[in-house]
Amino acid sequence: MHTITALVFDDFETLDLFGPIEMFGSLPEHYRIQFTSMAGGIIRSKHGVPMQTVAVSKLAYQTDIVLVPGGLGTRQLVYNHSFLQTLTTLTDEADWVLSVCTGSALLAKSGVLNGKRATSNKMAWQWVTSQSNKVYWVAQARWVVDGKFYTSSGVSAGMDMALGFIADRHNIDTARQIANHTEYRWQENSGMDEFYRP
Amino acid sequence: MHTITALVFDDFETLDLFGPIEMFGSLPEHYRIQFTSMAGGIIRSKHGVPMQTVAVSKLAYQTDIVLVPGGLGTRQLVYNHSFLQTLTTLTDEADWVLSVCTGSALLAKSGVLNGKRATSNKMAWQWVTSQSNKVYWVAQARWVVDGKFYTSSGVSAGMDMALGFIADRHNIDTARQIANHTEYRWQENSGMDEFYRP
Repeated sequence: MHTITALVFDDFETLDLFGPIEMFGSLPEHYRIQFTSMAGGIIRSKHGVPMQTVAVSKLAYQTDIVLVPGGLGTRQLVYNHSFLQTLTTLTDEADWVLSVCTGSALLAKSGVLNGKRATSNKMAWQWVTSQSNKVYWVAQARWVVDGKFYTSSGVSAGMDMALGFIADRHNIDTARQIANHTEYRWQENSGMDEFYRP
Repeated sequence: MHTITALVFDDFETLDLFGPIEMFGSLPEHYRIQFTSMAGGIIRSKHGVPMQTVAVSKLAYQTDIVLVPGGLGTRQLVYNHSFLQTLTTLTDEADWVLSVCTGSALLAKSGVLNGKRATSNKMAWQWVTSQSNKVYWVAQARWVVDGKFYTSSGVSAGMDMALGFIADRHNIDTARQIANHTEYRWQENSGMDEFYRP
């Protein structure tokens, strides 16, 4: 059993989080998910979803996998040293670190992506890549894997990345079964990015 | 401004709800979303997402659009007369009623789909269609529109349906812009259902 710690914050992008949760949640025998925020309590997504979270200091399980969504809230958090320190601590503890959309801006700013390849949302590309010049930013990718880091492109790409992670850890048939059960049109090829505009 | 009332229950399917919420939430100037359940309080999705809801008796706004997810929880709810009565009341009040996945089983059982065309999840097809023989069930469809009812196929199809609804109410460019911003590979054609197996 692997524990996924989803680190959320106000104004996270709704689907960034819940897309991957749907995919990982389809394998309850392998993945357990805990939702956390800096102070705990109710966190609201950009679209007003009010979710209950546990304070990061009171997590029930050790973190095997960190999941970081993006969204409007990241614009403030790149200046929040306490948050970035917490993210770094979780990242150091975890075997794997997954981000969706502008979640990679948070990882980049905290320094953990230094020397790594990573991607992010097209819509916020200039802003994200300006957070660190020590990251090898890959513009054309549905998701990018480098060491223990999986970073995905915008919003829906998080679902493709989650299935890609599952294919890597288990096998591609398991990932395809989940895609089929959720009737999700999975882009299996991480480099095939139809939303990229040269 | 139109009010979407999302009627949830324990063990709803995570993406059934949050996929459409992402799409409608992208137009905050047009759609306001309220999350409700029979008794209010924290409702947990099948994958453990703990969401705060308002009791249906204490809704702040009148309902223009009902959104009903599917999921494991529907298996009990088809026997819950109080829930079905509430769903019928909301349906009567609303201009539009949208369901995802096995959410259409709840609509069918409550009788509001009598004489209407509708679809549902392939994975639960026998069970869903057995809830009512007065519905014209359409097996091959990403989503189906009949009068004020939009019913979608499994899980991810809810996002296609939400974009289809937005295309119908606004225009297709608006829907395509949302798909592009969320990097969602929208199946624009409601009848093109690659998950259908004859």
